[in-house]
Amino acid sequence: MKLQQIIKQHRLELLFQQGLFGFEKESQRVYADGSVVITEHPKTFGNRSYHPYIQTDFAESQLELITPPNKKIEDSLRWLSAIHEVVLRTIPDNEYIFPMSMPAGLPSAAQIKVAQLDNPEDVAYREHLVKSYGKNKQMVSGIHYNFQLDAELVKTLFNAQNEIQSEVEFQNNLYLKIAKNFLRYQWVLLYLLSASPMVDDDYFKHGVPEDLSPIVRSLRSSEYGYVNAPDVNVSFDNINTYVESLEHCVSTGKLIAEKEFYSNVRLKGAKKARDFLQTGIQYLEFRLFDLNPFDPYGISLNDAKFIHYFILLMAWLDETATQDDAELGKARLYEVALEDPFTSTAYAEEGELLLIALLDMLKELGVEQTVIEIVQEKLTQFAQPNKTLCARLVDEIIKFGGYQQLGAKLAKQYKAQAFERFYALSAFDNMELSTQALLFDVIQKGIKTEILDENDQFLCLQHGEHIEYVKNGNMTSHDSYISPLIMENKVVTKKVLAKAGFNVPQSLEFTSLEQAIASYALFENRAVVIKPKSTNYGLGITIFQQGVQNPDDFAKALEIAFREDKEVMVEDYLVGTEYRFFVLGDETLAVLLRVPANVVGDGERTVAELVAHKNNHPLRGDGSRTPLKRIALGEIEQLQLKEQGMDIFSTPAQGQIVQLRANSNISTGGDSIDVTDEMHPSYKALAVGIAKAMGASVCGVDLIIPDLTKPAELNLQSWGVIEANFNPMMMMHIFPYQGKSRRLTLNVIKMLFPELKI
Amino acid sequence: MKLQQIIKQHRLELLFQQGLFGFEKESQRVYADGSVVITEHPKTFGNRSYHPYIQTDFAESQLELITPPNKKIEDSLRWLSAIHEVVLRTIPDNEYIFPMSMPAGLPSAAQIKVAQLDNPEDVAYREHLVKSYGKNKQMVSGIHYNFQLDAELVKTLFNAQNEIQSEVEFQNNLYLKIAKNFLRYQWVLLYLLSASPMVDDDYFKHGVPEDLSPIVRSLRSSEYGYVNAPDVNVSFDNINTYVESLEHCVSTGKLIAEKEFYSNVRLKGAKKARDFLQTGIQYLEFRLFDLNPFDPYGISLNDAKFIHYFILLMAWLDETATQDDAELGKARLYEVALEDPFTSTAYAEEGELLLIALLDMLKELGVEQTVIEIVQEKLTQFAQPNKTLCARLVDEIIKFGGYQQLGAKLAKQYKAQAFERFYALSAFDNMELSTQALLFDVIQKGIKTEILDENDQFLCLQHGEHIEYVKNGNMTSHDSYISPLIMENKVVTKKVLAKAGFNVPQSLEFTSLEQAIASYALFENRAVVIKPKSTNYGLGITIFQQGVQNPDDFAKALEIAFREDKEVMVEDYLVGTEYRFFVLGDETLAVLLRVPANVVGDGERTVAELVAHKNNHPLRGDGSRTPLKRIALGEIEQLQLKEQGMDIFSTPAQGQIVQLRANSNISTGGDSIDVTDEMHPSYKALAVGIAKAMGASVCGVDLIIPDLTKPAELNLQSWGVIEANFNPMMMMHIFPYQGKSRRLTLNVIKMLFPELKI
Repeated sequence: MKLQQIIKQHRLELLFQQGLFGFEKESQRVYADGSVVITEHPKTFGNRSYHPYIQTDFAESQLELITPPNKKIEDSLRWLSAIHEVVLRTIPDNEYIFPMSMPAGLPSAAQIKVAQLDNPEDVAYREHLVKSYGKNKQMVSGIHYNFQLDAELVKTLFNAQNEIQSEVEFQNNLYLKIAKNFLRYQWVLLYLLSASPMVDDDYFKHGVPEDLSPIVRSLRSSEYGYVNAPDVNVSFDNINTYVESLEHCVSTGKLIAEKEFYSNVRLKGAKKARDFLQTGIQYLEFRLFDLNPFDPYGISLNDAKFIHYFILLMAWLDETATQDDAELGKARLYEVALEDPFTSTAYAEEGELLLIALLDMLKELGVEQTVIEIVQEKLTQFAQPNKTLCARLVDEIIKFGGYQQLGAKLAKQYKAQAFERFYALSAFDNMELSTQALLFDVIQKGIKTEILDENDQFLCLQHGEHIEYVKNGNMTSHDSYISPLIMENKVVTKKVLAKAGFNVPQSLEFTSLEQAIASYALFENRAVVIKPKSTNYGLGITIFQQGVQNPDDFAKALEIAFREDKEVMVEDYLVGTEYRFFVLGDETLAVLLRVPANVVGDGERTVAELVAHKNNHPLRGDGSRTPLKRIALGEIEQLQLKEQGMDIFSTPAQGQIVQLRANSNISTGGDSIDVTDEMHPSYKALAVGIAKAMGASVCGVDLIIPDLTKPAELNLQSWGVIEANFNPMMMMHIFPYQGKSRRLTLNVIKMLFPELKI
Repeated sequence: MKLQQIIKQHRLELLFQQGLFGFEKESQRVYADGSVVITEHPKTFGNRSYHPYIQTDFAESQLELITPPNKKIEDSLRWLSAIHEVVLRTIPDNEYIFPMSMPAGLPSAAQIKVAQLDNPEDVAYREHLVKSYGKNKQMVSGIHYNFQLDAELVKTLFNAQNEIQSEVEFQNNLYLKIAKNFLRYQWVLLYLLSASPMVDDDYFKHGVPEDLSPIVRSLRSSEYGYVNAPDVNVSFDNINTYVESLEHCVSTGKLIAEKEFYSNVRLKGAKKARDFLQTGIQYLEFRLFDLNPFDPYGISLNDAKFIHYFILLMAWLDETATQDDAELGKARLYEVALEDPFTSTAYAEEGELLLIALLDMLKELGVEQTVIEIVQEKLTQFAQPNKTLCARLVDEIIKFGGYQQLGAKLAKQYKAQAFERFYALSAFDNMELSTQALLFDVIQKGIKTEILDENDQFLCLQHGEHIEYVKNGNMTSHDSYISPLIMENKVVTKKVLAKAGFNVPQSLEFTSLEQAIASYALFENRAVVIKPKSTNYGLGITIFQQGVQNPDDFAKALEIAFREDKEVMVEDYLVGTEYRFFVLGDETLAVLLRVPANVVGDGERTVAELVAHKNNHPLRGDGSRTPLKRIALGEIEQLQLKEQGMDIFSTPAQGQIVQLRANSNISTGGDSIDVTDEMHPSYKALAVGIAKAMGASVCGVDLIIPDLTKPAELNLQSWGVIEANFNPMMMMHIFPYQGKSRRLTLNVIKMLFPELKI
């Protein structure tokens, strides 16, 4: 099969580069000194019987983090990052993730607890492994790289040839070609990417092997790593020999199960190897890779791209390795694994030729320059072994006095990084913070999630057969279509709420400025708000807190409102404090007081200094990337200061509250203060009733309340409802400036998936 | 109580003019000759046991049309118009609504059927009336005018005085003042507005009374009308005497029930008069008014306004009529009723003085000039009796050779008018046609409806305690919030549908023009559509029906699409015809083929002439006021003609189809053709499944199908789904250009109110 030729002839260059990518990354939870923990897998991570992202590998201490398959390798790395951030923020304060493949500070065998999975067979399998390999070898960690060719590519290639009549057979042959060529040339990747040069002495059950150098390229991939016994021989020659030889190993007891076959390439996509005969190999799992300790999540994007094109080269090459070639490759792998990382490899020339072939392929495919540069850089490492990852790692280990020390240092550094913006998920930071918070929770609790549209904040959540869609964090199937439409329209909202018997300020609507101005008499001396019917940003609103005093002010306010909308409301103004009630289902989950931007004097610092200090708060930032916003010192704020007889250089007295804004919006630097526990329950019940009247499952209800400690009464003096909001903000409740955090995204998940009993 | 003074002092001028207005209009269904029908009340009008709008009064033939209360009198008249249009379009082809108060062509007493209401008591009451008054008098019709003062006005007036301590008492006194003054001066309204000058001889049970002139002002309000026996004396002096005297009439058998008291003013708002002592009179019903035959619906807006201010004058006047004054007023009414309409009334001076007082009041209140002009015009009628409504009516009757003849002519004219735009409701023509169609159906079926927001097409429907909100005709609580959000996003829609196993064209999305252009090879020779991700109006779409042939065309199409959106899709193009499936719940209710604007040649007329002829179709118009649109002959159409080697002056051959557009949108003159019955059921089932996958109860599904007669298969060659639309258009199904009409709005109502079993 001349793959190159078909690709060029049918212009399949782009399709050839497409596919699906996924990672499975093992790593040990460790204490601050880098020693492996003896605690159980944290219960907060939902249920391992279905968790798609956070599992345990061999031991309770050994995390296995799994990304969903993605079309873009960048997305798989983003998922890997997100899953790491979730794990690092969830594990106990004194625990970390060890960034190296070889474990350090191993507990005694008695203390290493096999992963306590629900399925007894899974536990029994692990107990078997203990017997065959010992516990220590099981504690070695790596990162597995899954790759699937684009299905359309495989189909097109099949149609473009006529040697093979069966599509399944064609597909099996294609994947087997990649597998065999990979086995043949895998040592090249080991040379470039290995990172397990050493291990603690106590790793070895029977003492340190005498002929082992203190520093090698990869202990993990060597005969001292976690590898099958030498008598496990499986043929990759063709799919039939593969199935038969693998089944033979199991039937003769050399392997307890097919999955015990630890080849650096695994054929994937079926429960039993024999199924490949019917359904075909679906994808390949490459298990060669040590954790890269210099990357917080075990693999860098450049290396991941390099591996992708290396795998493609295995398909691209004209020749297909034989089983003998594969065995030769395995032998070279073992050999190179135990080489001194600072010396040149014995097979440098073969490595260089292969990378030159890779560069040729990249040119033929028209691959972007950045990828070519990655390969060119790797090529230079054959002449300069000290530039390989392993050599650089050894340099660092020496600098830090030991690999456990370096590992501990990096583990702590990566955990600290994961907390830098603790309210966000770095990898999904182009999405809204509330969607990031929801993603955090679904990853933590193990709900299978697909990002349907990143720009549109559209997620598909799935548990078993149960599918739920979520947009903007809390727009779901649990709300009815009509309820946001009601809430969008203030006039309709008020009519609906009044009909349901809630305290609604009276209002009149006007469609003509003249008619509105002529109605002055109706409002004289009444405290009213004049506002456009349908803007939502506070534009065009005038408040007559002390009552309308003269026709001119009244007319002016109306003019301002009519600039924003063709319908304007004049509404009773309620005296009291505005609170935001976050209602979900039958419960008010959070109540928030929003306070206009302000600083409190200390008798020493100026307003400008106090603002700068307050703006340093980790929750504050600009734009939409933080839950709270920095206080500006623009015209509006300076005007506000002036009204209080101050400017930005004034020094307010100790305890003096300086207002910097009249409006309480969080978006203009306001403070969010959680008062859920202080609020009298009668108002919380009212908010639930209001949400129900709107037909809403998730609703932000704004009530004006003069005294939150007194029970609600049935009159506008006791309370009044200002507005009901669909898709209410969640971040201000989750990360308030003061008071208790309310993890509302978790409640959204509970609402959607009650069967999970989270 | 000096009401004028309080109003001026407290600037209540506007509040005084506010209130609630409602009409109850009786009229006979008649045949083309004006004679009363002997058919039953049509079953299509839902159930009279709850119908809020369309009832029967005394007889089966006698419609009683009831408007809901409205704050604006204009709205009550709009409702009256809408209810009439519904009735006129629903009654049998050979039936009409008689526009005069006095019936003509009365059937024999045996054929006059008392209204067959569900409640046996209601039927028994009518049988009693037959005995007391005879059937003929019961057939007289009028229009009742209900008016309620603004509740806040009553409260403010109460607080501004200190003569009366109880608010209920104050309210009763206020309404009684209006009632008594009205009784005193009602003859003025009769003089100006009466319209029952004559009647058929056979109206009189015992022959035409000897002393009755052949032409009078108002037979209906005279002693020959439908009035209580002279011994029914009820005192309006105060609320206690009213209750006692009314109860006395009932207990002594002069009246069978309180409701048999036919005063021209009725106190309203309680089931029993005695309740007024506790709860107060809520509003007044004025029953004086004859039908105005010159208005299609029995009363003109100007007269309705005039009556409103006349009623207000009854409150405004300093003096309050005594019971004796009221009796005097009644006597004058009877006298004026039998005057010759062409002569001056005996009490002209009193009438003029009263209208001058009314004009004074209007000035004090600052009422708009148009109202003042209405009153001034009425004032002149005292000097010119031939300008009164009654005199003008007599003139017309003479011209047409009899009042039955004139009535029949007007009845036919009004029915024809009601059919002029049969797809609309004239009174609500500022709303969308689909909302008008829905309003038609709820009025017909008797679902209580409130227009919450006219500009926003927001309705509140209610039956018993069951409330439903509807926006834009079919946006309801039956749809989930997430489903329109899914449908709004083409990428998400496709992912969801593909996940659910439907035939979806494959596509790739691009966010960069360069990247998209670079993907040319993926699409070469493939039939594709290039379109912006989220526009809905066909903008920026290019179709490569024969496959992408060269990179330049491909790049150009991408550029056009990127002008409309920052994300662009390249999607498989499906071969076949596009059909719109309207799905509601578990059923595809309608399937439509949309054909691009076209004309069919006749070998004689030019394209321009054919277009002009086709545009004459009653369903076609411009803008949104018709279900179909006129074909334009603009640049695009002329270009389309040019491609066919024609221009607008070409004469296409007999049967030759001339395309005037490439796109099939109804909005650019396309034809809508109902193919519901032709479509193979398998596609209808698919459309239902697609709607379900989107979580939608109401959904417009666009399928491409090569052959609608062949059953659907599971591949893109058999069918493919293009789009799913929320809030799908209904008018094109309800009023298609060709094929059967599908009354979808009725299905929306059935969905919302299954309990009605419509």
